[in-house]
Amino acid sequence: MKSYFVTLGFNETYLLRLLNETSAQKEDKLVIVVPSPIVSGTRTAIENVKIQSYRLHYPEPEVHEIKLSDFNTTLSQILDYLLPLPEPIISDLTIGMRMFNSLILINILISKKKFTVYLRDEGGGSTVISFNDNAINALLRDYTKEEMRMLDVIKRNNGISTTELAKVLGKSEKTLLNKITELKKIGIVTQKGKDRKVEITPLGENAMKLIEKKLTSSVSNLQKCGQKASPF
Amino acid sequence: MKSYFVTLGFNETYLLRLLNETSAQKEDKLVIVVPSPIVSGTRTAIENVKIQSYRLHYPEPEVHEIKLSDFNTTLSQILDYLLPLPEPIISDLTIGMRMFNSLILINILISKKKFTVYLRDEGGGSTVISFNDNAINALLRDYTKEEMRMLDVIKRNNGISTTELAKVLGKSEKTLLNKITELKKIGIVTQKGKDRKVEITPLGENAMKLIEKKLTSSVSNLQKCGQKASPF
Repeated sequence: MKSYFVTLGFNETYLLRLLNETSAQKEDKLVIVVPSPIVSGTRTAIENVKIQSYRLHYPEPEVHEIKLSDFNTTLSQILDYLLPLPEPIISDLTIGMRMFNSLILINILISKKKFTVYLRDEGGGSTVISFNDNAINALLRDYTKEEMRMLDVIKRNNGISTTELAKVLGKSEKTLLNKITELKKIGIVTQKGKDRKVEITPLGENAMKLIEKKLTSSVSNLQKCGQKASPF
Repeated sequence: MKSYFVTLGFNETYLLRLLNETSAQKEDKLVIVVPSPIVSGTRTAIENVKIQSYRLHYPEPEVHEIKLSDFNTTLSQILDYLLPLPEPIISDLTIGMRMFNSLILINILISKKKFTVYLRDEGGGSTVISFNDNAINALLRDYTKEEMRMLDVIKRNNGISTTELAKVLGKSEKTLLNKITELKKIGIVTQKGKDRKVEITPLGENAMKLIEKKLTSSVSNLQKCGQKASPF
């Protein structure tokens, strides 16, 4: 069981495509949040979703009107509809009003639910970008100094063996293997080949960019204070 | 000094309005990320921004083309332009392609920079919703059990005095006042009147919703395991 949480504008095509491509089932949830009052173009789109959902055995849409107000009041209404939903949450943020797409994204992120979000190229291209809670968690995570150092060594020696890595870091191979298992679970390193060489993943590269930025700012802050800076 | 980080479609009106309403200065940064290759409607909009920026002493736009690819490759390109920018980052996520609005929002959030983001009602209404890094941090924060308990008591007794609150929580008034100062800084409680009564803010109400959800799920998880559940 999964839950669709989307907004809708004048065109239901992208929503129906999302339901089709993610194999929506009758027993899934389909929650549509739209600005209040519902304008006639959106009402027509909702009616079309209802008809197609019935015909194609997709979940019946539940439509909720959101009264636009300040950030917290608007967020609060959307949260009330999102929080009780079963995970994972599936959304496409290229449907309907831009304002609602951003609000839905924030709601999904702060809910800390499992999710997959799809972004479609509206420019006519066929690109679909998707990301999930694992990716965002890896990017938002505060890495420890020890983890930063390990990632730094792996990045500088991409494809390093665990034996070599343990030696460079001054750790036992057992401790190191536990840590690698953890970082693999987060999705930022991977092991390849029969000798299990350690590599940074593309997600790990982005996490490293954020870490490096953080190190650079703390180094420059330290330098501003006239202290000797140490990267770790 | 501040940095504008936005995308652009066929219409530069919202961007010029953002620059005007936030008093953009010549020395600020204005970075525009657009999908590659730039289509002619966007090229015209960029030219118009250049002309108006020159005329109105707004910052000169720096335009970067982003090659749409998978999530990590696309994110990486945008991060490279965002990370070096001076804070705060100002953005309006109701300009241009929806896909880019979501990517910009994610980039801003993971960069952990100070920011203010504006969302405009494209439906013709005059509503503008804005939010900043403080609000998102308060919502994403992991509250300790002690903080949850304190917030719960404040919420159930909105407008409680610090003396009473200290008594209920079994804490010294000094310890309590330090904690209240911290929660006020996060933005989730406030003190009102000459007797400094403690109240939950609208942001705090939303943070509480997320906490309650978390407590409910952990209680139901515990119950599933056949253990006795305690809310704190």
